[in-house]
Amino acid sequence: MANDKPSGKCPSLSRTTMTELVLPNDTNNHGNILGGKVMHLVDLAGAMAAYRHSRMPVVTASVDSMVFHHPIKVGHLVLLEAFVSRAFDTSMEVEVTVCSENPLTGRRLRTSTAFLTFVALDDHGRPTQVAPLVPETAEELQRYAGALERRQRRLESRSSEG
Amino acid sequence: MANDKPSGKCPSLSRTTMTELVLPNDTNNHGNILGGKVMHLVDLAGAMAAYRHSRMPVVTASVDSMVFHHPIKVGHLVLLEAFVSRAFDTSMEVEVTVCSENPLTGRRLRTSTAFLTFVALDDHGRPTQVAPLVPETAEELQRYAGALERRQRRLESRSSEG
Amino acid sequence: MANDKPSGKCPSLSRTTMTELVLPNDTNNHGNILGGKVMHLVDLAGAMAAYRHSRMPVVTASVDSMVFHHPIKVGHLVLLEAFVSRAFDTSMEVEVTVCSENPLTGRRLRTSTAFLTFVALDDHGRPTQVAPLVPETAEELQRYAGALERRQRRLESRSSEG
Amino acid sequence: MANDKPSGKCPSLSRTTMTELVLPNDTNNHGNILGGKVMHLVDLAGAMAAYRHSRMPVVTASVDSMVFHHPIKVGHLVLLEAFVSRAFDTSMEVEVTVCSENPLTGRRLRTSTAFLTFVALDDHGRPTQVAPLVPETAEELQRYAGALERRQRRLESRSSEG
Amino acid sequence: MANDKPSGKCPSLSRTTMTELVLPNDTNNHGNILGGKVMHLVDLAGAMAAYRHSRMPVVTASVDSMVFHHPIKVGHLVLLEAFVSRAFDTSMEVEVTVCSENPLTGRRLRTSTAFLTFVALDDHGRPTQVAPLVPETAEELQRYAGALERRQRRLESRSSEG
Amino acid sequence: MANDKPSGKCPSLSRTTMTELVLPNDTNNHGNILGGKVMHLVDLAGAMAAYRHSRMPVVTASVDSMVFHHPIKVGHLVLLEAFVSRAFDTSMEVEVTVCSENPLTGRRLRTSTAFLTFVALDDHGRPTQVAPLVPETAEELQRYAGALERRQRRLESRSSEG
Repeated sequence: MANDKPSGKCPSLSRTTMTELVLPNDTNNHGNILGGKVMHLVDLAGAMAAYRHSRMPVVTASVDSMVFHHPIKVGHLVLLEAFVSRAFDTSMEVEVTVCSENPLTGRRLRTSTAFLTFVALDDHGRPTQVAPLVPETAEELQRYAGALERRQRRLESRSSEG
Repeated sequence: MANDKPSGKCPSLSRTTMTELVLPNDTNNHGNILGGKVMHLVDLAGAMAAYRHSRMPVVTASVDSMVFHHPIKVGHLVLLEAFVSRAFDTSMEVEVTVCSENPLTGRRLRTSTAFLTFVALDDHGRPTQVAPLVPETAEELQRYAGALERRQRRLESRSSEG
Repeated sequence: MANDKPSGKCPSLSRTTMTELVLPNDTNNHGNILGGKVMHLVDLAGAMAAYRHSRMPVVTASVDSMVFHHPIKVGHLVLLEAFVSRAFDTSMEVEVTVCSENPLTGRRLRTSTAFLTFVALDDHGRPTQVAPLVPETAEELQRYAGALERRQRRLESRSSEG
Repeated sequence: MANDKPSGKCPSLSRTTMTELVLPNDTNNHGNILGGKVMHLVDLAGAMAAYRHSRMPVVTASVDSMVFHHPIKVGHLVLLEAFVSRAFDTSMEVEVTVCSENPLTGRRLRTSTAFLTFVALDDHGRPTQVAPLVPETAEELQRYAGALERRQRRLESRSSEG
Repeated sequence: MANDKPSGKCPSLSRTTMTELVLPNDTNNHGNILGGKVMHLVDLAGAMAAYRHSRMPVVTASVDSMVFHHPIKVGHLVLLEAFVSRAFDTSMEVEVTVCSENPLTGRRLRTSTAFLTFVALDDHGRPTQVAPLVPETAEELQRYAGALERRQRRLESRSSEG
Repeated sequence: MANDKPSGKCPSLSRTTMTELVLPNDTNNHGNILGGKVMHLVDLAGAMAAYRHSRMPVVTASVDSMVFHHPIKVGHLVLLEAFVSRAFDTSMEVEVTVCSENPLTGRRLRTSTAFLTFVALDDHGRPTQVAPLVPETAEELQRYAGALERRQRRLESRSSEG
């Protein structure tokens, strides 16, 4: 019938990479990138990965806790890589990793890892089913299993707040 | 001696409010604000509250998980309110609440609550002691107690990741 | 009948506050905020106050003369507070005060006061009646009386230009 | 001696023109440019004219009242023209005219005229003497005479506020 | 008949000038404007000139090679001047010259010259005929003749690529 | 001696990818990206590739002619990929390819290819020697050979202009 469940897609289809040069307006008085600028980039990279998996409009539903392990300086590069880690009916978990690169030395540091949840929307703005994700490599399988655990933790912590 | 522990400050000293008009570039194709734009504003409001408590340069160390409960439309207002909830030696937890306001009806919705940790830095960029926070009202006392629990959960979840 | 004059509203309903961190792109070569950036923020704060009083779309009709009493430095905070001071048929006068705050000392300076006139528009973009403003406190009554004098001066100076 | 009064300069040396395309983010929900965006452009054009007359760093000291006679739509052009109208010891009055242009018809409307005062600064940020302005044409002479009257009105209105 | 060929227009009708202050975010770590920012301004100036000649929506079809002869520093001015040099059925060649100006000395340097091709579009987004350009001065005639040669070189180099 | 010629680097070291979501402010009234925005992104991607090859500050010296083959719509993605194609003493040629992606269908189109020249600078802002590029794959060898031909054409066309 027309409205079958969409067939599964592999994680690499959603892979999205960004490279950004840190400009003065992205930084505080000490020349370090503002945490909020990093979060902004993380959300953009994540949304594009969710777009690529679902091929539907998406909205950010939540972001898990993020740690900023190292400052990133003005003039340095920010490298982002996003993958859909698992699809759940109408939502997707996306993992985004953030690295800094000193352009004069090439030294790279992992500064943050983020997990975001995006919901796919139909033409009326209502949540709509997305294709399942089918992990293939060992790393993808691990990320896929982790996504379920993180989802359970999220649901638990929300019910305990309520 | 000169370098005594700074005396305590009340939470209202750090209170910071922002009102923002959602412009087209802050939104996706459906006219809803991007999650990353909200995170950017949350970090700015939080940093200004931490500045006001510590009167020192600060950097964002982490942000707890955030949920985006309702979309915010282009042309609507975003209201942010930030308070330092507790100070811990060289860091501060800041609570930021985000509401939307429909300018034509005045209807307001709480869309997100965020908890961020900022670290105060001395002239050499090293973490430095901040004044303790002294809660006064019942609400401030509750937020203060909650901050300790949240900090313990953060430390636990990081050690379990390691 | 349906189209009665709307009932009066108190000034506090329109109160709008903004806190902004001065970023490098907002400043000239000496690290002082550009006057035009301050004007931009003043207009935004004023428009949001006018929105909140009228609950209708508004456009800026005029701004009275503004003086910039003190420079505001990069990394400092700009604090804006806007109130509707009086409503006149289809227009509103809004008072916006601008202060700077040094985040490291907490020192605040009143840098500017601005009076703007906004016009409310109906669905066809034509000026439309707004609710009257009903001042309550002594300060609100003074601002309300002042608004009438300023309006008369504006009308006089325009007719003398014509 | 080294520090003689600088010789006079003609107004055309300071003439500064800008042409701007109105982009979505410059506008409100009705697709009309925000008043604050116009003020921002007026200040930039004025500052560049004051730079060109004084060849020194300048800061905006004040702006006279401005009226926004016509809305300017997204996709239309904003044309600005700025001239120094008179120099007064350490300050300059600059006149800035703002027109809109419909790019599809070429129709132009004068939307605003602004008078701003800029102060020239020396290397220590202190007000410093600027070259006198020497008007030549009838229009320049009229603007020059007007500048003195406007200055007197500004001084009067400030003393009456004090 | 209704759809006659539009009558010719002189080049001065399309003349467009911009003056921009180089802000920190436009520059690299050495305080020099990014080449991409210059290209962005060149395209805007060119599009406005093409608008003014055709009085129709336009899109950038191509830009010829550009050389950046001198760096432009933060705080300096960028001066752009654009003219339509020739119209070809549905497209126009626009010449844009870029100069820098040191605001403290008035020294100007020609930094780049660019030739762009814009195509005019009808209401359905299809290329549509534009008015011919009628050069008048010797300089305009030279630019007009040059435009034909540049067009031939463009067509040749594209066919050799194919 | 200390200042030996640096050893060669392979092209993949400089590979830089960007993914950008087209926002309303990047577009004209028809919702198509401005050519100047594409050029801005191309220059950024190219500069980061040149940074990665040279590990020195770089400035854009020139960009070859670019054609915009297809419009890119608001809400679509822009994909950029940049490689250093050849190093010449103090300069590098970088090839940047631009594709669009419709996020709802995944359809990609090659919209532009650009060749830029960047010059590496020492601490005094003077051109300084960069490492040679050592092509390895057939595609890299072809690009490397093409870079020499393009350089010769650039030098010829400049001398014919002189």
